[in-house]
Amino acid sequence: MAAHIVDQRTKALQKPATEIILRTHTEPSEDLAQERKRATFDVQELSYALNGGKEMLDKKHRFAEILAKTTWGDKSRRYFLTREEEYVGGLRAALGIWEKIKSEGLSLEDGALMRSLVDFPGGLELHIGMFIPSIMSQGSKEQQAKWMPLCMGLQIIGTYAQTELGHGTFIRGLETTATYDKQTQEFVIHSPTLTATKWWPGGLGKTATHAIVMARLMVEGPDGRMKDHGPHGFIAQLRDMDTHLPLPGVTIGDIGPKLGFNSVDNGYLSFDHVRIPREDMLMRFSQVTPEGRYVPPPPSNSKASYATMVFVRADIVKNAGSTLARAVTIAVRYAAVRRQTAPAPGERELQNCAATLLPLLAAAYALTFMGDAMMAMYRQFEKDRDRGDFSALPELHALSSGLKAVCTWITADGIEEARRTCGGHGFSRLSGLPTLHQGYVQNVTWEGDNNVMCLQTARYLIKALAGVRSGKAVSGSADYLNAAASELAPGARSPATCDACWEQPDVAGGALRHAAARATAAAAETLLAAGGGRLAFEGKPWNDNTVESIRAAKAHCAYVLHRTFLDSLAALFALDTLERGGGLAALLEDGFVGASQAAALRRCHRQLLAALRPNAVGLVDAFGLPDYLLNSALGREDGDVYRGLLDMAAASPLNATQEGPAWEGVLKPVLAAQPRSRL
Amino acid sequence: MAAHIVDQRTKALQKPATEIILRTHTEPSEDLAQERKRATFDVQELSYALNGGKEMLDKKHRFAEILAKTTWGDKSRRYFLTREEEYVGGLRAALGIWEKIKSEGLSLEDGALMRSLVDFPGGLELHIGMFIPSIMSQGSKEQQAKWMPLCMGLQIIGTYAQTELGHGTFIRGLETTATYDKQTQEFVIHSPTLTATKWWPGGLGKTATHAIVMARLMVEGPDGRMKDHGPHGFIAQLRDMDTHLPLPGVTIGDIGPKLGFNSVDNGYLSFDHVRIPREDMLMRFSQVTPEGRYVPPPPSNSKASYATMVFVRADIVKNAGSTLARAVTIAVRYAAVRRQTAPAPGERELQNCAATLLPLLAAAYALTFMGDAMMAMYRQFEKDRDRGDFSALPELHALSSGLKAVCTWITADGIEEARRTCGGHGFSRLSGLPTLHQGYVQNVTWEGDNNVMCLQTARYLIKALAGVRSGKAVSGSADYLNAAASELAPGARSPATCDACWEQPDVAGGALRHAAARATAAAAETLLAAGGGRLAFEGKPWNDNTVESIRAAKAHCAYVLHRTFLDSLAALFALDTLERGGGLAALLEDGFVGASQAAALRRCHRQLLAALRPNAVGLVDAFGLPDYLLNSALGREDGDVYRGLLDMAAASPLNATQEGPAWEGVLKPVLAAQPRSRL
Repeated sequence: MAAHIVDQRTKALQKPATEIILRTHTEPSEDLAQERKRATFDVQELSYALNGGKEMLDKKHRFAEILAKTTWGDKSRRYFLTREEEYVGGLRAALGIWEKIKSEGLSLEDGALMRSLVDFPGGLELHIGMFIPSIMSQGSKEQQAKWMPLCMGLQIIGTYAQTELGHGTFIRGLETTATYDKQTQEFVIHSPTLTATKWWPGGLGKTATHAIVMARLMVEGPDGRMKDHGPHGFIAQLRDMDTHLPLPGVTIGDIGPKLGFNSVDNGYLSFDHVRIPREDMLMRFSQVTPEGRYVPPPPSNSKASYATMVFVRADIVKNAGSTLARAVTIAVRYAAVRRQTAPAPGERELQNCAATLLPLLAAAYALTFMGDAMMAMYRQFEKDRDRGDFSALPELHALSSGLKAVCTWITADGIEEARRTCGGHGFSRLSGLPTLHQGYVQNVTWEGDNNVMCLQTARYLIKALAGVRSGKAVSGSADYLNAAASELAPGARSPATCDACWEQPDVAGGALRHAAARATAAAAETLLAAGGGRLAFEGKPWNDNTVESIRAAKAHCAYVLHRTFLDSLAALFALDTLERGGGLAALLEDGFVGASQAAALRRCHRQLLAALRPNAVGLVDAFGLPDYLLNSALGREDGDVYRGLLDMAAASPLNATQEGPAWEGVLKPVLAAQPRSRL
Repeated sequence: MAAHIVDQRTKALQKPATEIILRTHTEPSEDLAQERKRATFDVQELSYALNGGKEMLDKKHRFAEILAKTTWGDKSRRYFLTREEEYVGGLRAALGIWEKIKSEGLSLEDGALMRSLVDFPGGLELHIGMFIPSIMSQGSKEQQAKWMPLCMGLQIIGTYAQTELGHGTFIRGLETTATYDKQTQEFVIHSPTLTATKWWPGGLGKTATHAIVMARLMVEGPDGRMKDHGPHGFIAQLRDMDTHLPLPGVTIGDIGPKLGFNSVDNGYLSFDHVRIPREDMLMRFSQVTPEGRYVPPPPSNSKASYATMVFVRADIVKNAGSTLARAVTIAVRYAAVRRQTAPAPGERELQNCAATLLPLLAAAYALTFMGDAMMAMYRQFEKDRDRGDFSALPELHALSSGLKAVCTWITADGIEEARRTCGGHGFSRLSGLPTLHQGYVQNVTWEGDNNVMCLQTARYLIKALAGVRSGKAVSGSADYLNAAASELAPGARSPATCDACWEQPDVAGGALRHAAARATAAAAETLLAAGGGRLAFEGKPWNDNTVESIRAAKAHCAYVLHRTFLDSLAALFALDTLERGGGLAALLEDGFVGASQAAALRRCHRQLLAALRPNAVGLVDAFGLPDYLLNSALGREDGDVYRGLLDMAAASPLNATQEGPAWEGVLKPVLAAQPRSRL
């Protein structure tokens, strides 16, 4: 083993070699400054607009600083935690924020902002997000009076147990039963099959002491026969308050690691004839009387629950925008300093990635505006509802279903696309992108599988078109169907006569509108053919033709998304959707777009990319995402990405010792056993 | 807290409620048996064919049984390991197989089969996959004689250090230097910048004692000025053989957690003027003489290294097929028993997923056959080469580049598509799909970024087309370009005259061929326009028009993939590629396909889905993948998926105690502090 001497002669020898290297070497940190100079708009003004004003933006950054200094908000070891550490850490963070809100008298909005910044979901998610809201919305006055103080004082921690091993989206298929025993005035909660085991509820595994259990209510009817009244909610205590051990007859556990979200203890739960008092069925809308008479809910109830869904989905759409914004911020900033696979030495990667990243950037803006628009629609609906007007609900429900699907698809796939533009370093957790994607992809499944969501929208669109054709006009986002006859007339042509024409909102949007109308008409046609002349929204005709229906829902949502924001980003979003979403094929097929127009569309698409290129970094800066939130070596605002990777890697658990955890027990017996010949 | 009494009266009360549930309940395990009965072909025969005969298939299953019983091959805790446990476990597995091969005198093929079954990459990957092969291919006879015994006896463990923090695919950009000191006849290895730090090499972090370091060779020329001879390979010892500590001047560490592959200790490495003897430069092709004269490699050298790349990429394509086969096996089997979101109670999910899963199934077969075909091409090339005939190399290189990209894209995206069809349970690691995807996606980046790969293929195609137009015929996979003139003539039309026509190989394949020829012509046209009438394969004209070039490479590879297998699966692959890959838009645009033909194509696509549906389970069974390899609760051959989830979850570390790891320190202080009012 040679001694290591770095004498003057060695340094002198190395000097000219180093000079050769430094001739082509560049420091990454100046790159972003250059890029920022190229922006052709006022980044700060846009940032204020996107963040709800200067005050809100400042508050976000102030909170980020405060949280980074707390023990539970510090993120320096976030990517190195074991499953157990993640679980405990997520809980500590949730309790820390809860405490801060109480001690500093912060608003719920401030609390939500802190939770989004700490970005560490834990065992309290469903206590806050489902247990409390359900008691407020479905509990009787008496039940709210009894349970809310216990919830707000954290005397109990609740979760919401609906999904079962064998039954997810199809709620009517739930197998857990709640059988009323009028002799003791109790419900017997029971899991009659293995597939009736509750599976997935967050916080259920090791945290929650109570749960709202969705179970099929069974009550003996006047005829003495047991009657199934379908799924209802019951408040059940699961764990002993002093020992935290499961109560007798209750089996609980953690369901194991997931693709992401591992700080949450998603759990399983089964019941062996567990009795709860009659009073603990959620009784606001339907009741079981002491003597065992079932009182069904009023019809308006279903409408109310629809409204809740609309709110949740509007929130999902908004979240899709902010999540995609995070991914695009990281990828664009890194591409602006990266020279790895640049075609020519010295050139930056952003040149190569523009065709991928700029459309994603446009989509992030589209989703952000759409989320705001949906919230506004929901607020308006609330006003109408309080006047007893539910007329907007069907459209809201249909629109929110499709948008939930399309927006979460765009974001889930967009994060991965953005990650791939980062090359090898995008595969490192230190880039922040793997964790972001793994935590996000569940959104395409939960709150209604995306394909199922699209089918709900399609059903609405096809019915609306049928209505229009029988003289019944449709209002709201699908109002363009009123003109379907002329829109889809054989002679209908896109007005585009030049490349730049495709930048015009009415041309690009018109193409999306036409594609949407056409897709709905095509789906209706297929359905009519399958149904032997009548529209069947269930059974074989419907189930065998879901592809067309889903295509219609997607086309409709793309058009609606485009309508929500109008500028060059919007045009790029539209053209990219047409080119990659396959919409262009449909437009060529029915002759709305001719060959030369399609060629012009593609040229325009390229020109837009070139035009937007200088604003790429400015547009991501405008999202105003603190480094604390991004927690990414590649997405750092200062662009010093390589130092960032080195600094973050130092904390890797494998680096705790120089020789590593395998030396003593595994490697040494093999290597040290060998003769040392020349080594 | 109520006592838990399950007396006879309670059981009697529950009985009728349970009977109601059981009326619609079904046991999943019979479903697969039913599906298997529906297969219209001999599954076993196909399975033998796919696995290289009965003997090979039996051996695979025999090995699986043996490995499952070893301590290092057991997979029961695989999804629950901490990063450190994964790292140690991966090494134990590699050493266990190494030992088995030696003790039982197994062939290298048997060893490779075992490694693929254990499926636990570790710190020895690059010792086996890069260090040893590099010494064999680039080391002199003397170097091989010295180092190979040390490698094969595991007296040393090597890795291959090329990629740097600042430079990946762009090898000429490497910044590490190896400066020759003729006075001591040593090379001084040095990292002159932070971005020169080696980053990513597998096994480098904590395992390897030695590395082949790619560094820019610097030698003082006759004129006394330092000359840069570009990247060369040097064997450097990194760690002390007795203490495993880094040698003086060597800084090494683990780069931290990644999206996947966390059992491998990818590492970083920097040098501070570290000296190695002159003899440790890899000297087979280029040398530095003791007196400091540089001897450049013979021209044939680059060809030889091209050949190695072709082999590696053929292997990647084969691997893409077998990996997608794993994902599709899991997803199809689960869909065959799943009833979660089924449109009607009792109906299975496979009905809804057919449009997603069957094209993926077709792709898995296409990639499998393509991998075999590429290996055959490579073997043929080896024969030619030994006769001094390198003529097939350009085509092989171009084809392998594009196929590497297209096949890894298909598989990376396909695993995620398959995972999403599994709904919520696909998000659980116990499904096997998250880990499969996370370990695989790196393939779109390493061994050449996919977009860069496509550009190499495009360059070849565009040159070939230019050659054809100047009367120089092209042979090999791009031979269809010889007929480009007639293929792309204004009058050219698809012969499809009926729906079923699209099932004919020549019709579906003809459309792919036309799309490929058209895409290449379009890319050439764009390039000519940008280059002012001449084809420029570098600089701005080339860099600004990569989208068209990449499109051409993708279209070409889709056509080649289709040519490798011809049956109804092939037709589905072709039609799906046309519909979803956007190729149909291009064909409509140039009139090769008319509106009615496009409609027929889509109808045929639907009919193929219906026709293949009964064979879905048979076709995945034919892959012959042991449960041991799949390690998936959802993909179990017996279909007992829900019991599988429960059984596997029991081992979750959070289930080590009933109250969980947060009770004592975190939850108890909050909950137990509360008054016990009614609880």
